[in-house]
Amino acid sequence: MTMEKEAWMKILRYLKIRDKARTDILDDILPQDIAEMITEMEPVEQSEVFELLNDEEAALILGELEIAEQANIISTMADKRSAKILHFMPSDDVADLLGGLENQKAQSILKNMNKEDVDEVTGLLNYPTDSAGGLMTTEYIAFKETTKVKQALSKLRELAPSAETVYYLYTVDEQERLVGVISLRELIASPDDETLSQIMRTNILSVNVETDQEEVASIVQKYDFLAIPVVNSENKLLGIITVDDIMDVIEEETTEDIYHLVGTSEKEGESLVHASVLATAKARLPWLIVCLLGGLISGFVIDSYEDTLASVIALAAFIPVIMDMGGNVGSQSSTVFVRGVATGEIMPKDMFGYFFKDFKVGLIMGIVCGVSVAGAAALWQGNPMLGVVVGLAMFCTVTLAATIGTLIPIFFVRLGVDPAVTAGPFVTTIKDVTGLMIYFYIAMTFMEYL
Amino acid sequence: MTMEKEAWMKILRYLKIRDKARTDILDDILPQDIAEMITEMEPVEQSEVFELLNDEEAALILGELEIAEQANIISTMADKRSAKILHFMPSDDVADLLGGLENQKAQSILKNMNKEDVDEVTGLLNYPTDSAGGLMTTEYIAFKETTKVKQALSKLRELAPSAETVYYLYTVDEQERLVGVISLRELIASPDDETLSQIMRTNILSVNVETDQEEVASIVQKYDFLAIPVVNSENKLLGIITVDDIMDVIEEETTEDIYHLVGTSEKEGESLVHASVLATAKARLPWLIVCLLGGLISGFVIDSYEDTLASVIALAAFIPVIMDMGGNVGSQSSTVFVRGVATGEIMPKDMFGYFFKDFKVGLIMGIVCGVSVAGAAALWQGNPMLGVVVGLAMFCTVTLAATIGTLIPIFFVRLGVDPAVTAGPFVTTIKDVTGLMIYFYIAMTFMEYL
Repeated sequence: MTMEKEAWMKILRYLKIRDKARTDILDDILPQDIAEMITEMEPVEQSEVFELLNDEEAALILGELEIAEQANIISTMADKRSAKILHFMPSDDVADLLGGLENQKAQSILKNMNKEDVDEVTGLLNYPTDSAGGLMTTEYIAFKETTKVKQALSKLRELAPSAETVYYLYTVDEQERLVGVISLRELIASPDDETLSQIMRTNILSVNVETDQEEVASIVQKYDFLAIPVVNSENKLLGIITVDDIMDVIEEETTEDIYHLVGTSEKEGESLVHASVLATAKARLPWLIVCLLGGLISGFVIDSYEDTLASVIALAAFIPVIMDMGGNVGSQSSTVFVRGVATGEIMPKDMFGYFFKDFKVGLIMGIVCGVSVAGAAALWQGNPMLGVVVGLAMFCTVTLAATIGTLIPIFFVRLGVDPAVTAGPFVTTIKDVTGLMIYFYIAMTFMEYL
Repeated sequence: MTMEKEAWMKILRYLKIRDKARTDILDDILPQDIAEMITEMEPVEQSEVFELLNDEEAALILGELEIAEQANIISTMADKRSAKILHFMPSDDVADLLGGLENQKAQSILKNMNKEDVDEVTGLLNYPTDSAGGLMTTEYIAFKETTKVKQALSKLRELAPSAETVYYLYTVDEQERLVGVISLRELIASPDDETLSQIMRTNILSVNVETDQEEVASIVQKYDFLAIPVVNSENKLLGIITVDDIMDVIEEETTEDIYHLVGTSEKEGESLVHASVLATAKARLPWLIVCLLGGLISGFVIDSYEDTLASVIALAAFIPVIMDMGGNVGSQSSTVFVRGVATGEIMPKDMFGYFFKDFKVGLIMGIVCGVSVAGAAALWQGNPMLGVVVGLAMFCTVTLAATIGTLIPIFFVRLGVDPAVTAGPFVTTIKDVTGLMIYFYIAMTFMEYL
């Protein structure tokens, strides 16, 4: 029996004998840990566990599972129970979960939910999942700006358990427009009879409900917020986005960027790690086909220098090292650049400065690699002139690869395209073709000495 | 004049005419935005600005700059002023800043700081920067477990401004050992005369002061904490790590992983984007040299099949496409795997299951690419048998590259080495050598039909 299984049996025993009204399993074990065990279980066992949990516990644990798993578990439950559990989940999570269910099932659960919950959730379902609206929760706390500190505190004592974060309180005017923010620490440190408008900060950063999630993430990360308010175009407060959701967005966007660098991607909401064999192959093949065409173009270059190659067949032995080195330098340059843009270290105005720096780096690396390979080639083939040809070609290829590796992503940034999408494939093809052309051109030039 | 410059002039005017005691520039503009403008300024302008800021403002703004910039600015100030500003910075930031100064300067600033500040900071300076101790701040709030809710709340009103986060309160026993945690929302929702031990949670997750920052980050991210307590081996509470520092760690570690994939790295605390030309070349060259050797080994393979190549020179035209495709499939496989391990999507027990899945994906992609290139080769060279050779070689290379691309990182995980460090370089060399060997072996076998 694995350790997980053993721990699990213990918890199950505990769940069976406890008095549901008086003991809370989450006092002893965190929902994330229970969720982890649940993913290891068979569907029958999962159902058994959720029967034994009360609605609030079930909501907390469910919220820690992947959407697909949540949907599986909810599908086996009576709609009435599902609706009760969903009542305790933050509205953004409920919207994501319902979006992952079959439409008919989602509808019949919605019918069992109370009107207030339904309104909140159906409002959220209208926003694209990768927008601020798709990320936000409606469980925030807002007061009219005329509220007194004392009133706010006592109201807070009632509301706190159901709000997703109480660490920022928002103040709104008569038209529900966002006018200020107060952190809970500021509130408790303020005299009881001041009004919120006296203590609130009015230089509030908010995001529009349509803002892309990547932009939201970079704002929260820059300003170290625990939550950011979401407003519509009339500045009406609609929801908040909390830092834990932002961390998930950052992880998701980074994975996307990394995948783009190797020419693959994953479908919204389905991890490439867990996708089926066919779906994975389908995600990875398109760029491979592009690359295959690129490789054939490189082949045309070699083919057109067939005579040169036929007369000095030893030239073929250096094709791999020229191609590999061009490829590596190119992907180093484009990767460092793309990551720099993603983290904000390289701003648009710095791009050409960075380009010239990388060109100089390329020159140095070109000299080192060129000299090394020239020596190796001369010794190996016993032909100093061949060494010169290979070394010169290497120098040009490495320097050029560094240049292309930065220039192409810059070009895409200027076009307004995410450079991560295209940097990989383009750099590979262009550096191969140019590298080989340089190599054979130099070889042909020096032909009589070889 | 750029927009930034213009905004800046406005702020400078404002700073010059305001009444320091009564107006707070940070009410109108966030410290991160001022910090951004400061990085654009000349050293003389920077000094002028810091003269006009009060100590608390200066501390907040300084904390948003990179360590190297902080050190530059502090170096131009009188030690007495520096000490006053540092008093308002969280202790972890002070420790990082002092670590970035010349030793003599750091010592003379420490001499001007009050004893309490010095003790806190020198304690932190003993921990490695990438450990929990190096990340934590000592500005947390802890109460004895016997404290009453009412006392805690009134104490909090005093302490709040100087603590880095007040959203979690920790309870300790007589020996300062961590025994419980209470969130501020739980505290304000509890009756005044209960003791903290009645309302605290006792299943607390804490990290040891020596824990690696990457592990700390993954815990905070998994459990969605706003802060996590740091203890020593006797469970004595030493500090807390807040979620904003965790986000920085995640960004840093991700950049490290991405750089490793292309065989480069950056020195602790110095960004590869901003490093000098020579330092950058030095960081990137080691793997290039390894790769150069790998490329030469591939060359040996071609060299040893020189006769085969000389008799069918058209074979050379397909060297690039075989190499490129092997390289791409290999880096796709290793990148998806390495990222899956980094995000926790692939756990050690899933590895071989994932390996078999990727093998099947490799088979499908091998068939698609093999058939495509076979057709292209047959048509282009007008030689159907050559198409068969190239297609077969492509099928084997792609399937093998997918296999190697997963197997090598798995091997490194088993050895306890971060697979990101080595996946790139090894995969490149091995797939090149094997791909070319397969290609020429098949060509030689079919020689009489070519």
